[in-house]
Amino acid sequence: MRELEDRIRTEGVVRAGGVLKVDGFLNHRCDVGLYDRMGAEWARLFAGRRVDKILTIETSGIGIACVAARHFGDVPVVFARKTESRNMDGEQLRARVHSYTKGRDYDVMVARRFLSPGEHVLVIDDFLAMGAAMDGLLQICDQAGVVVEGIGVAIEKAFQPGGARLRERGYQVEALARVASMDAETGTIEFA
Amino acid sequence: MRELEDRIRTEGVVRAGGVLKVDGFLNHRCDVGLYDRMGAEWARLFAGRRVDKILTIETSGIGIACVAARHFGDVPVVFARKTESRNMDGEQLRARVHSYTKGRDYDVMVARRFLSPGEHVLVIDDFLAMGAAMDGLLQICDQAGVVVEGIGVAIEKAFQPGGARLRERGYQVEALARVASMDAETGTIEFA
Repeated sequence: MRELEDRIRTEGVVRAGGVLKVDGFLNHRCDVGLYDRMGAEWARLFAGRRVDKILTIETSGIGIACVAARHFGDVPVVFARKTESRNMDGEQLRARVHSYTKGRDYDVMVARRFLSPGEHVLVIDDFLAMGAAMDGLLQICDQAGVVVEGIGVAIEKAFQPGGARLRERGYQVEALARVASMDAETGTIEFA
Repeated sequence: MRELEDRIRTEGVVRAGGVLKVDGFLNHRCDVGLYDRMGAEWARLFAGRRVDKILTIETSGIGIACVAARHFGDVPVVFARKTESRNMDGEQLRARVHSYTKGRDYDVMVARRFLSPGEHVLVIDDFLAMGAAMDGLLQICDQAGVVVEGIGVAIEKAFQPGGARLRERGYQVEALARVASMDAETGTIEFA
């Protein structure tokens, strides 16, 4: 998606350790007009797929998924939680995830009653790199017995193995920007 | 807002300790069609107010604010973070907040560069009860030197003092559903 690549090229900041900061428009300050055009693009890319529900994960996936859902007939969005809340009750589907950003493991949790067996689900998140968080969401989808119709991510770090592994497993993975390489010293970002 | 009151009455669950669970449509499973109509209602209630930006707080405020922003000319949404992230850099505006739900204190943080002095801000969140989180957001608005045009919340627990205190301080607070009383034993919910 040309607009997203342009925004990453002009506003993204590359940090040592393969960190790409896009908090000016994607995951702290949210450009909702861009989110809307991202949703329209996913609707085009997943045209013909049955989408009953969108699954995402807190925090940065929520706004993107909620705006994108407008392009899928206002289907409900369910977001996986990363932290226990006193308000959580009922059976929770859980998967253990390693965060390479935070350098620790955590559980992702979704209430079982919000994912019904046989539902067709589109999974959306902001980043796909090692694919750890996405693997956790897919484990939860397996536990719930839902059909994963596709995976939409805003930015794929194509130089990390997450996306390739998911495509090998047969998932339709649609990344709106695929970063082939980044250089923290020069700040240059190349797209696939 | 009649639709929201009806959803709370039919789907909300009252728990001991003044807990109202609305995770079936507001803050775990997200009804984005409802979010859109909530945004339209806030646009009507804050008509004539200048809104350059919407400020909210993770997690549950993000989806609501991002969909609502479509009704305010696609203004950017900035969400305050509750947890440190290795990706956070630059100066952070901070406020200490006590969570009555989680029973602990935490910091809310917003990067200073995403709130510019003189900007006119609408603050949106899902719940207003004691007003602790909202007070933290307003402290951050003061630190940033922005003008708070109003406060929009989905559900106000009108039997708790947060909303009254904010109105006494002169803020336009627009709650789309004001719960006057709840009974955990009978499950009944009365609106103001």
